[in-house]
Amino acid sequence: MSSIAHDAQKIVQDSIAAVLPDAAVRRALEGHTFARGVTLVAIGKAAWRMAKAACDVLGDQIARGIVITKYGHSEGSLPALEIMEAGHPVPDENGIAAAHRALDLVSALGAEDTVIFLVSGGGSALFELPLPGATLEDIAYLTRQLLACGADITEINALRKHLSAVKGGRFAQACAPASVLSIILSDVLGDPLDAIASGPAVPDTTTCEDVARIAAKYALDVPEHLRPLLERETPKTLRGVTTLVTGNVTALCDAAAKSAQALGYTPLVLTTTLACEAREAGAMLSAIAREIRRSGQPVAAPCAIIAGGETVVHLRGKGKGGRNQELALAAAPGIAGLAETCVFSLGSDGTDGPTDAAGGVVTGEFADACRTKGLSIDAALADNDAYPLLGAMDALLMTGPTGTNVNDVSILLCR
Amino acid sequence: MSSIAHDAQKIVQDSIAAVLPDAAVRRALEGHTFARGVTLVAIGKAAWRMAKAACDVLGDQIARGIVITKYGHSEGSLPALEIMEAGHPVPDENGIAAAHRALDLVSALGAEDTVIFLVSGGGSALFELPLPGATLEDIAYLTRQLLACGADITEINALRKHLSAVKGGRFAQACAPASVLSIILSDVLGDPLDAIASGPAVPDTTTCEDVARIAAKYALDVPEHLRPLLERETPKTLRGVTTLVTGNVTALCDAAAKSAQALGYTPLVLTTTLACEAREAGAMLSAIAREIRRSGQPVAAPCAIIAGGETVVHLRGKGKGGRNQELALAAAPGIAGLAETCVFSLGSDGTDGPTDAAGGVVTGEFADACRTKGLSIDAALADNDAYPLLGAMDALLMTGPTGTNVNDVSILLCR
Repeated sequence: MSSIAHDAQKIVQDSIAAVLPDAAVRRALEGHTFARGVTLVAIGKAAWRMAKAACDVLGDQIARGIVITKYGHSEGSLPALEIMEAGHPVPDENGIAAAHRALDLVSALGAEDTVIFLVSGGGSALFELPLPGATLEDIAYLTRQLLACGADITEINALRKHLSAVKGGRFAQACAPASVLSIILSDVLGDPLDAIASGPAVPDTTTCEDVARIAAKYALDVPEHLRPLLERETPKTLRGVTTLVTGNVTALCDAAAKSAQALGYTPLVLTTTLACEAREAGAMLSAIAREIRRSGQPVAAPCAIIAGGETVVHLRGKGKGGRNQELALAAAPGIAGLAETCVFSLGSDGTDGPTDAAGGVVTGEFADACRTKGLSIDAALADNDAYPLLGAMDALLMTGPTGTNVNDVSILLCR
Repeated sequence: MSSIAHDAQKIVQDSIAAVLPDAAVRRALEGHTFARGVTLVAIGKAAWRMAKAACDVLGDQIARGIVITKYGHSEGSLPALEIMEAGHPVPDENGIAAAHRALDLVSALGAEDTVIFLVSGGGSALFELPLPGATLEDIAYLTRQLLACGADITEINALRKHLSAVKGGRFAQACAPASVLSIILSDVLGDPLDAIASGPAVPDTTTCEDVARIAAKYALDVPEHLRPLLERETPKTLRGVTTLVTGNVTALCDAAAKSAQALGYTPLVLTTTLACEAREAGAMLSAIAREIRRSGQPVAAPCAIIAGGETVVHLRGKGKGGRNQELALAAAPGIAGLAETCVFSLGSDGTDGPTDAAGGVVTGEFADACRTKGLSIDAALADNDAYPLLGAMDALLMTGPTGTNVNDVSILLCR
C-alpha cells in the first residue's frame, strides 16, 4: 500500500469512529446529570447501540425505558430496558405495540422527570401508532393515492403526521410535563428535524389547512371516519424539549477534517449536502486535484478536499457497485499521472450499494495500473460495475457494517 | 435587478474583457522590442483581431505578414499584412494557398529575424498544407478510416501531423533560423500545446513509430504513395521558439477572481479544468452555497467560488439551451431561499449552445419566482430547455459574440 492510501485508511477509521452511535450518544450526554431516574425511549436501526451507550454513561440513572429497533438489530438485554423488534421499512403490529408501550411509559411522568429520546434512521417506520379511529391500512390507503398522483414526500408526510399519535411532535406532547432530551443520529441531509423519523419530538410545520389543501389538490378519496382526525391539529410549540443532533454527516466531515489535519493535510470542507450524480462528483474532485497541482488553488498541498452528503447513481448497466465506489472510480482518469494524489469515498454504514464494501479508493497510478492489467475503467462505469474492478485492483474500502448511518464522505487527498 | 446580480454582470464584463484577443496580445507583447522588422503570421478564428492588436502595439515594427482566418471573419485591411480567408471546419484550397504563402514569407528569414505567430481556435483547419506528394483528400481518407474504427483524437492527430508541412512543429522548423514568438489564445482545457491548432510551432510528441503502430492496430489501408511520407519524422526539438499562452480559461478565471475581489468578495478558484455534466456542476455549486451559509466553509461570505472549464450536456430533450444556461438553471433549486446568493455561468465566446445568450444567472429567489409564474425548472431541465425559461425570467446573460473563445466560467457569489 502506498503511503497516501495508508493516510486515506486512517482518515476512514477516524471519521467513522466519530459517528458511531456510541460516540454520538456519549458526546451528547457528557456533563448531563438528572435529578430523578430517567425514562429512555430509543427508536431506529441504531436504537440498541445508542441505548447501550446511554446505559454505559448513565448507569442506574436510567429507571425504565424501551428500545424499538428492526428485527435482528438487538444485541441482547440491557438493564432496566424493554427491547422490542418491529417491521422496517413497512411498519407492522409489533411496531404499534411498541409505540403503545412507549406512550404508557411516558404518560405518567411529572414535571421533574426527564425522557431521553434516542433517534436514528428507520425511526419513521419503526415508531408508528395511528390515532385512535385510524389504522395502518388507512394511512397506507392515503399514501398509495398520493404516490399515484405524484405528490411529494412533504405532502405525504403532512397527512401521515396528522393521522399519527406519535409523529409530528405528538410523542413529545405525550411526555409533558416531563422534559425531553432528544439525541439524534441523522441520516437526512441538512438535518431537517421534522423529517428525521417524522419528528416525534419536534413541533410540526404542517397544518390541518395544509392537509385540506393537499386533499383537494389531488381530489383524494378520504374515508369518512378519517375526516375528524385530519382536523385535529399537531403541536406547533413544545415546551421542555432539548434537541441535540450529534451524529450526522457534518460530524463525519468534521472528523475527517480533523484526522486529515493531524496527518499534515490542510482540510477544506466544500459541502455537507452533496447530492449530485456520483460519477460527476468524482470528475469534479479530479478537476480540483489538477488545479491544486497546477496553481495551488483552491488550497495548497498537502491538503484534503472534503465533500459530505449522499450522491445518486442513475443505473444504466447491470453490474455490481455502489455510489461511493462509482465516485472513486470515476475520479481515477482525471487524476491519472498525478503523484501523491488520491480520491476516496465511503458510506458511513460500511455497505455501499448491494456490496460488502464501504466504498473505494484510487490514486494517480490507478488508471495506468488498470491498463497494465487489461481492465477498462470506462467499461466498468458504463455497466455500473465498479465493484469487481476495484476488487481486482485491491482498491475497495472494507470496514464491515459499522452500525451507524450518517450518509457518505468523499475526499481528495493531495500530498 | 438585485444588487448581487449587478455584481455578477460586472464580473462577467471584466472577465471577458481580460481574454479578448486584443487584451491577450497586448499583454503578451508588452515590453517586447525587436531589432529588425518582424514577420507576422496569424491563424484561427480570432486571427484578424489578434493581428490588429499586434499592429496597434508594434506599429511599423511589423514589416510583413499574413492573416489566415475563417470566411467572414476579417474586418478590413491591416498595414503591411495580407489577409486571406479560408474554410472552417473543413480545410479548403484557400487555406492551402494561404499556408503556402506563409511558408514563403518565413522561409527566407535570417537568424536576426523574428516571426510573431498568433494562434487561436480553428487554426487546425484554417492552417493546413499537406506534404508534397499528399493531398487534403489523402488526409481525409485516413481520417475517415480512423474515425470508423473508433480511434481517438490523439491517434488521428499523430497521422495528420506526419502528413502535414506545417503541423507538429514543422511551421517553426520552416521559420529557422529566425526566432519565433508564439502567442496563443487557447480553447483547449489544460493548454496541451501540441493539440492547439495541431501545434505548428511546438515539438511533436508523436513519432513515426507511433504512426506505424496505429496503422497496424486498425489495419489501415495506407495508399502506397503516402508510406514514405509517414516515415519522415516531425521535429522533436525546436530552437529559438518562445511560447506564451496569454488568453485561456485560466486567465478568464483569474480575471473573474480579481473582479470579484474588487467588489469585496473573497475569491476561491476550485478548478480550471471542469469537464463534468453541466447540471451536476450546478448542483455541486449549490451544495457549496448551502455549506457557506451553514458553516462558512470552504470560505466565509462575502465570497466567489469560481470554476472554469467546459462542461458537457447529454441531450435528453428537444428544447433550446446551452451548457452554461443548464448549469445555472440546475443550481436554482439548491440555492432556493438563500439570501444574497447567486450562481452564474457563461461561455467566453458569448454564444452558449445554439442560442444568442452567453449563459444564465440565478439567485436564491429564482425558484420561488418561477413557481409564482407557473414555470417548472424540472420540466425545463428534463427537456434541455433552459433558454425559454431563463428568458421569461430575465435571467439570460447577453454579451453578444465576443470574438474570443477560451471556454467557460461558472461562479457562485455569496454576499
